[in-house]
Amino acid sequence: MLVDGKPHRTIWPDEAGVAVEIIDQTRLPHEFVTARLETPEDAAHAIRAMLVRGAPLIGATAAYGMALAMHQDSSDAALDAAATLLLAARPTAVDLRWAVDDLSETLQPAAPGDRFRSAWARAAAIADESAETCRRIGEHGTALIEAAWQGAAKEARPVNVLTHCNAGWLATVDWGTATAPIYAAHDAGIPVHVWVDETRPRNQGAALTCWELANHGVPHTLIVDNAGGHLMQHGKVDLCITGTDRTAANGDVCNKIGTYLKALAAHDNEVPFYVGLPHSTIDWTLDDGFKIQIEERDGAEVTDVQGRTPDGTVTIVRISPDASPAANPAFDVTPARLVTGLVTERGVCPASTEGLLSLYPERRPNRPG
Amino acid sequence: MLVDGKPHRTIWPDEAGVAVEIIDQTRLPHEFVTARLETPEDAAHAIRAMLVRGAPLIGATAAYGMALAMHQDSSDAALDAAATLLLAARPTAVDLRWAVDDLSETLQPAAPGDRFRSAWARAAAIADESAETCRRIGEHGTALIEAAWQGAAKEARPVNVLTHCNAGWLATVDWGTATAPIYAAHDAGIPVHVWVDETRPRNQGAALTCWELANHGVPHTLIVDNAGGHLMQHGKVDLCITGTDRTAANGDVCNKIGTYLKALAAHDNEVPFYVGLPHSTIDWTLDDGFKIQIEERDGAEVTDVQGRTPDGTVTIVRISPDASPAANPAFDVTPARLVTGLVTERGVCPASTEGLLSLYPERRPNRPG
Repeated sequence: MLVDGKPHRTIWPDEAGVAVEIIDQTRLPHEFVTARLETPEDAAHAIRAMLVRGAPLIGATAAYGMALAMHQDSSDAALDAAATLLLAARPTAVDLRWAVDDLSETLQPAAPGDRFRSAWARAAAIADESAETCRRIGEHGTALIEAAWQGAAKEARPVNVLTHCNAGWLATVDWGTATAPIYAAHDAGIPVHVWVDETRPRNQGAALTCWELANHGVPHTLIVDNAGGHLMQHGKVDLCITGTDRTAANGDVCNKIGTYLKALAAHDNEVPFYVGLPHSTIDWTLDDGFKIQIEERDGAEVTDVQGRTPDGTVTIVRISPDASPAANPAFDVTPARLVTGLVTERGVCPASTEGLLSLYPERRPNRPG
Repeated sequence: MLVDGKPHRTIWPDEAGVAVEIIDQTRLPHEFVTARLETPEDAAHAIRAMLVRGAPLIGATAAYGMALAMHQDSSDAALDAAATLLLAARPTAVDLRWAVDDLSETLQPAAPGDRFRSAWARAAAIADESAETCRRIGEHGTALIEAAWQGAAKEARPVNVLTHCNAGWLATVDWGTATAPIYAAHDAGIPVHVWVDETRPRNQGAALTCWELANHGVPHTLIVDNAGGHLMQHGKVDLCITGTDRTAANGDVCNKIGTYLKALAAHDNEVPFYVGLPHSTIDWTLDDGFKIQIEERDGAEVTDVQGRTPDGTVTIVRISPDASPAANPAFDVTPARLVTGLVTERGVCPASTEGLLSLYPERRPNRPG
């Protein structure tokens, strides 16, 4: 997507093909700074310190981290050490494990002399596949925005989309998941306006989604997480699109805390509620989203807010009395009954086991014949 | 309620009976500072600069402002000037107009020599009546908390109440409206724990409700506005109680933005949702809450957050890119169908015209005579 008018990805190889560059997302939205990764340690640090975040981008960074390790030392020992180092950077990230295992399996049978070239090509392919998956989510999702625009166009106004958190291109290699249909519709000339939930406590909407949309030139307005229901009551939201961290096989969606409240408001006001996802977020072993153990994060994320002071310094401020404790559940589960459709790289389906199996028939148990 | 172990109101006369003192609420939660009001200009400033806020407290402050004016000059001209000055401090505040009109009507027929004594007594009575109204809301609401506690007690845990914004004693003279049942239950020995919504964008929950509850010794936990639905899905909320800025005659409730989302979640999870209110918030002329024009406030309240830096300075920080505009609707309307009951100074009733008329039969049109 565009930054200062130029197309960008979140991760890209340098010209010499021996290092990769990333956007340091900890500096957004106040500064656009890139960082250069030359070693597997650099890649592990970028993942650990959240210079990169979002499952698909973490996976691509880990794949390049394996390649950078092979550039330094292509021995079996170095291969194992790089895998261990990268897996420890964010132990619960499923895409990180998947990418490291993929690279390990690709490289183990190869002769050490071929490993760097082979790893670099595989990492680039993983990044390209990830961008292509998101592009396809956008392609399928555009039709939904276009359909909603038919109504809006009669009123000579843009189509209004509400999104929560950052399931944007910054969380992937390009396009994003929830934002891919928005970018695709905007690029196709459909007048789109986005309501961006600030997404407390970490403010990924205010800091990242706003920054993305502003840079790509998509009209948008920041709102507090409290405001979406009111906007829907007054016909100011034509559809909602969010991402998902994990999708149960029955269509329940585990996403950033607060997603459930927006889905309830959408349902109460007959506003379609869509979820954009690559198939990698589907957990086929999970038949009920409410079985997911929700991560409880540090209360300091609630009591302390990061921002830029009038003199330009980025700092944190405490908003509550020191005597008051805070709780911080990071995700919630939106039951499938509140989800109008799942938008995947293969198309749009109902949020149900049957819906998902219609797009992924190879997952159907006991397939005839 | 208690501050540092001592009972406090939000406004009280000094010992000599020629000035009033207030809590400067702009300094909370980081500092507890009182301010002394000696003139009607002091009172108008306190209202305008929001040192005092909340309809009942604004009304009491305006009443004392009229009395302070009479202490300086008890002429007819001074009486008119004080009324004009105070009404202009916050032109849309209904309780302010009511209190100023009440004092004007009390004082106009009085001889100038009697006016100060008379005004002072009337202002004190208004403050006392306001505190008594809230105390009664608490008395009626305690029973609801006690009933919910029966279930909680079987699990040997406190009863969990969720509240939004600050409808606390800081917004009134004492007790609060939403918080009155909580304080009454706590003081009666019922183990209560409160989930406090931070209430973006102005963070009245994080800054004021947390401060109140901490000082009175009521166990509580700060959460982001996004978290309540998740807590309700997991049985961690036994009931919700909020305040209301304006209650339509059909039981629709216009309250701080985000109230509607919590009411939806409560309904979806069969959690009772109560609203505490003095009768002064009921608009008998309004048959449908959705006719209320919602105030759109400055977007800077969304983009800029106030708090205390690690070095102790209170400042604002910007959380979003400068290029992104923000919208800031201040209230939303919760339809009566989502409200389990209205808790007034006369008792608890269904959120409906019939319910309200059962408590306020004098409002019944065409009463059989």
